[in-house]
Amino acid sequence: MAAMTTRETDRDYIQSIERGFAVLLAFDAERPNPTLAEIAAATGLSRPAVRRILITLQRLGYVRSTGSRWALTPRVLSIGQHYSASNAMTDLAQPHLMELAERTQESASLAALDGGEIVYIGRVPVRRIMSINVSLGTRVPAHATSMGRVLLAWASPVEVEHAIKQSGLKAYTSRTITDQAVFREELRKVRQQGWAIVAGELEEGLLSVAAPVRDQTGTVVAALASSTSAGRADVEQLREELVPLVVRTAARISKEFGLRTDDEYETPTPSKGFEGFF
Amino acid sequence: MAAMTTRETDRDYIQSIERGFAVLLAFDAERPNPTLAEIAAATGLSRPAVRRILITLQRLGYVRSTGSRWALTPRVLSIGQHYSASNAMTDLAQPHLMELAERTQESASLAALDGGEIVYIGRVPVRRIMSINVSLGTRVPAHATSMGRVLLAWASPVEVEHAIKQSGLKAYTSRTITDQAVFREELRKVRQQGWAIVAGELEEGLLSVAAPVRDQTGTVVAALASSTSAGRADVEQLREELVPLVVRTAARISKEFGLRTDDEYETPTPSKGFEGFF
Repeated sequence: MAAMTTRETDRDYIQSIERGFAVLLAFDAERPNPTLAEIAAATGLSRPAVRRILITLQRLGYVRSTGSRWALTPRVLSIGQHYSASNAMTDLAQPHLMELAERTQESASLAALDGGEIVYIGRVPVRRIMSINVSLGTRVPAHATSMGRVLLAWASPVEVEHAIKQSGLKAYTSRTITDQAVFREELRKVRQQGWAIVAGELEEGLLSVAAPVRDQTGTVVAALASSTSAGRADVEQLREELVPLVVRTAARISKEFGLRTDDEYETPTPSKGFEGFF
Repeated sequence: MAAMTTRETDRDYIQSIERGFAVLLAFDAERPNPTLAEIAAATGLSRPAVRRILITLQRLGYVRSTGSRWALTPRVLSIGQHYSASNAMTDLAQPHLMELAERTQESASLAALDGGEIVYIGRVPVRRIMSINVSLGTRVPAHATSMGRVLLAWASPVEVEHAIKQSGLKAYTSRTITDQAVFREELRKVRQQGWAIVAGELEEGLLSVAAPVRDQTGTVVAALASSTSAGRADVEQLREELVPLVVRTAARISKEFGLRTDDEYETPTPSKGFEGFF
């Protein structure tokens, strides 16, 4: 399909599909079982419009009604399952995530960039009261996470602009980098050293190390991370022990994904540029 | 919303939403990166219709084009994530699945019924060459699996009819129960004993044990299973060692989900009715 003008695109846009997704996404942790009126309020759609969409989604098996309230059915999971089926990376990375989680006794994650956010596409949680509970498809702001830093470090200038604009480099803790120039300099450092550590920028006490995962062309398509809490490790320890392990595991996933091992992308050595990283 | 007649429902049905999902679901393991023409062939939609839908889904961020081919983006995972967010069961069961997987060194799963199939809503894989690779949202035929047997054993007669009709009790191995009367008798046994073992009916050498998970009203809403291979265990061993563990874990999840523990649903004791179960 050739590039299309905005005009053509607008004419071809099907608004009821957008509305269908808007209704599906109105079911969340705050509104697990919304009423029709609650969905209308959440989406900004009229009640008759929401009613027709619910009837349609019910017929398709994605929602069910219980009295005046509505719920998502497990069928919605099938949509995400098609993502895994059509993205070899997810399956391929899983054993490596498990090995990383076992060796570190910390949660291991894989994420991809989506605008100003990252989306978890792989996850091995570690059972522990303090463990971070994240499931596949969860979105978190890219700028305040180690995986986001890695993904943005190798992203195109347009993507970086978009992410900065979309996130507004919002502060989540007193440590979050909110200055554009400082942020861009961090991305440059991450790219140079081949990995990122982010400490307490999304949540106080949350530490994570991430490294890039590349496809056969060398393009960074995902970031691998190991996350821990300040009570279990400090930054110095992460740099010495965790960085080499995460970088090596990310390189193994890239290799399995088809990246040649004898090229320039293989296992970057942690540089000395780390001092003053925070 | 009150019950509606078919006529009202038909008038309110929005076909473009159905088509939007049909296009999304056309991306699968066999067609990870389809062309427009391949999607048209897979969905039975015209090329102009598929084109408009792809433009819409691209604008919404669910698909992206790479030359003449299309791919799903990780954003589709967000839809499933909303299922987890709106279904407390998933999060609540996760630590129990992990404990079961650790104790057995076998994969632990949680599934719900959807017509003639079960959908995985929780999963802790165990790294092992022979391990079964299943991700959330995966669908498998209910009649040939231990979780499906459990879910159907407590389902309404209408649901059982529907599942039998939809699956046609198709044979996957020489052991699959394909006779309706035999199948119904199995469901009765499962209900009586409180758990199911299925050996090699979906796949040769695949053994699994399942037990029901109930909500606060006592309704069976999910099935918990532990799966292994014939090389690692035999049926006798499963009955003695695994059944009590799976039944106990399922009861614990039910309890956390609000089921009172002093009622009739608590931990059914494996009955003596097991002999001749296969």
